[in-house]
Amino acid sequence: MISNKMKKLIEGSSMIRAMFQEGKIMKQRLGEQNVFDYSLGNPSIVPPKSVKEAILDIVENESEMELHGYMNNGGYEDVREIVAQSINKKHQTDLKGKNIIMTVGAAGGLNIALKAVLNPGDEVIVIAPFFGEYTSYISNYDGVMVVVSPNYENFGINLDELESKITAKTKAVIINSPNNPSGAVYSESDIISLSEILSKKQEQYNSIIYIISDEPYREIIFGGAKVPYLTKYYKNTIVGYSFSKTLSLPGERIGYLAVSSEADGFDELIGALEVANRILGFVNAPSLMQKVVSKCIDDTSDLAVYEENKNILYNALTKYGYNCVEPKGTFYMLPKCFIDDDKKFCDDAKEFGLVIVPGSAFCCPGYFRIAYCVDKQTVINSLESFRKLAQKYGINPIEE
Amino acid sequence: MISNKMKKLIEGSSMIRAMFQEGKIMKQRLGEQNVFDYSLGNPSIVPPKSVKEAILDIVENESEMELHGYMNNGGYEDVREIVAQSINKKHQTDLKGKNIIMTVGAAGGLNIALKAVLNPGDEVIVIAPFFGEYTSYISNYDGVMVVVSPNYENFGINLDELESKITAKTKAVIINSPNNPSGAVYSESDIISLSEILSKKQEQYNSIIYIISDEPYREIIFGGAKVPYLTKYYKNTIVGYSFSKTLSLPGERIGYLAVSSEADGFDELIGALEVANRILGFVNAPSLMQKVVSKCIDDTSDLAVYEENKNILYNALTKYGYNCVEPKGTFYMLPKCFIDDDKKFCDDAKEFGLVIVPGSAFCCPGYFRIAYCVDKQTVINSLESFRKLAQKYGINPIEE
Repeated sequence: MISNKMKKLIEGSSMIRAMFQEGKIMKQRLGEQNVFDYSLGNPSIVPPKSVKEAILDIVENESEMELHGYMNNGGYEDVREIVAQSINKKHQTDLKGKNIIMTVGAAGGLNIALKAVLNPGDEVIVIAPFFGEYTSYISNYDGVMVVVSPNYENFGINLDELESKITAKTKAVIINSPNNPSGAVYSESDIISLSEILSKKQEQYNSIIYIISDEPYREIIFGGAKVPYLTKYYKNTIVGYSFSKTLSLPGERIGYLAVSSEADGFDELIGALEVANRILGFVNAPSLMQKVVSKCIDDTSDLAVYEENKNILYNALTKYGYNCVEPKGTFYMLPKCFIDDDKKFCDDAKEFGLVIVPGSAFCCPGYFRIAYCVDKQTVINSLESFRKLAQKYGINPIEE
Repeated sequence: MISNKMKKLIEGSSMIRAMFQEGKIMKQRLGEQNVFDYSLGNPSIVPPKSVKEAILDIVENESEMELHGYMNNGGYEDVREIVAQSINKKHQTDLKGKNIIMTVGAAGGLNIALKAVLNPGDEVIVIAPFFGEYTSYISNYDGVMVVVSPNYENFGINLDELESKITAKTKAVIINSPNNPSGAVYSESDIISLSEILSKKQEQYNSIIYIISDEPYREIIFGGAKVPYLTKYYKNTIVGYSFSKTLSLPGERIGYLAVSSEADGFDELIGALEVANRILGFVNAPSLMQKVVSKCIDDTSDLAVYEENKNILYNALTKYGYNCVEPKGTFYMLPKCFIDDDKKFCDDAKEFGLVIVPGSAFCCPGYFRIAYCVDKQTVINSLESFRKLAQKYGINPIEE
């Protein structure tokens, strides 16, 4: 009945969603308060007040025909301009409205970017650990995924390995910093090196290699970490952003792509992104939400909550003997399991009410992801379970 | 830089959008009141009051976390149930929430349906005249489009030709009734015959052939025309609906797919549609708008306006000597040009301020589409231009 590709996808369907379903069943069995569901990256904090105010204001005062009607496939001109100015202010870039394409979230943005640039058989490099959906996005356009193995020291980029994997067929490198699932932020020196490698390889192969920078967690950073703005380092960058995490609006499907005018073949690329938006069936980003985010462009939910959760968890877990790279952003961390088999480890964790996701889902077996976008009390209540899980493997808390 | 497929698409990009751009330039040159822009299918009437009321009520009273958060990729359970009940009431079907997948408009719905069922090389039959975007949607999944030529008599289905074009590789037939661009509504007898042909061919080839029924214009019908509900005639039907036209919300990207539980491999098909929604980057239909349409499910904009426009235009054009099948629905009609070259004809029309789209854009050369979703006065003011256009070709008004 259904396509062969789809059959495989359904069988191996999202491990994250599977753990989430499992968590719901566990809650019925063990009681809500005894289950600590760290499976989904669903924001746990309310949108800023300005979101509600913007919706009410726009719906009360703007023309309904304009508000709910078709516009250019790239988005409302005024919204694109506001987004560009906001990026310029934050990152000293020189973007204009024409550099922005409004998209159906970051997932929609990544799909139109890949649709726009990939020929069948083109290679796309991803850096482990990475968000498992990239596999499907690349496969949608018959691209070939090439994985750079994890840098276990700090979850940065294994630059030598990346360089060795670039071929004449390499069309794009997807990066995601702050990173889901590790919480790592790639350092400026990694970004500079990456840019130099790609520039050299473009020249060597007389090719264009895009960086597709997936940045839904850009604003969720800890301890003042700096996240370099990629177009300033490498002109052939397509930045993908989503308001899902920053404004706690994941269900609304609103984000954008930003491309510098310096990018090779800029006009053609923007044209291709607009056409891809149309023919993949997005047509345009949801119209009311375009206007809403343009009115809340510099606001965020109370993101400090995530840093607080990170501190509580990181401090406790390292004390209990877990080996973990300290996250610099996002609401994820990726500690090491005490055994190689991460699926068994996550199964064992259920005994203590912990719902966590195997690192295999992110091409990083032997690790597990904690999505700590939950309320603080849940984090505190869960600590004892993490301690017991460690003890199950004979690991005892480190003496202070 | 960009993919080869995309290069071709940009070159031959939407003829409709091109005419629309042309119309804007003409308005600058000739003055707004002298240009009659019949190019775009953008609703010309405001949404019903209930849309605004629903948005305000939901935003004031519902939990923000629930309202803007992730839900099942198929949509909110309660919204799916309300959609199913509304269809049941109107069409005496027996659908439940599980039979409905909320989508990013009908375009998003068609894309996930094709993604779910097509293997590369599978054939998809379309019936001319048809919405040109189907070509891209089918190509997105490496399907092969097979065109059934127009039935010029009434723009119904050439059933014998359709039957002769079904092969072992036929995976789907896309139908669109009420039809863009002709305004035709396929008769119940055509639907019965189509169902019989497909059932016979499924048996002959031991295959599954889906009808994908694209129905954004279902509620815009004239003179009480009946539009058969396809799942009642043929179980392997995927119905695609959009609220864009009925509620005048095209920019919001909200629609659904409906599949009967009787469909072969129903569970697998629904699973594939949900996964396709996720991996193509839609993830889910915009959350607030899902809730809004569920509260306005049986409302419509003041659709009678379109029938009034149709009557004025149809009566005048036939009097002026145009040959035209009278539309039974939508806000389109597809008269015959007075010359074979429809592109030249539409170019000539510009002289009189008329912006119309060549039938070639709909696989129906020699005809032209009028999208009469404009205000009534524009229609009245444009009549003289249509008369002059006919006279340019030596056609004089028919004496009463």
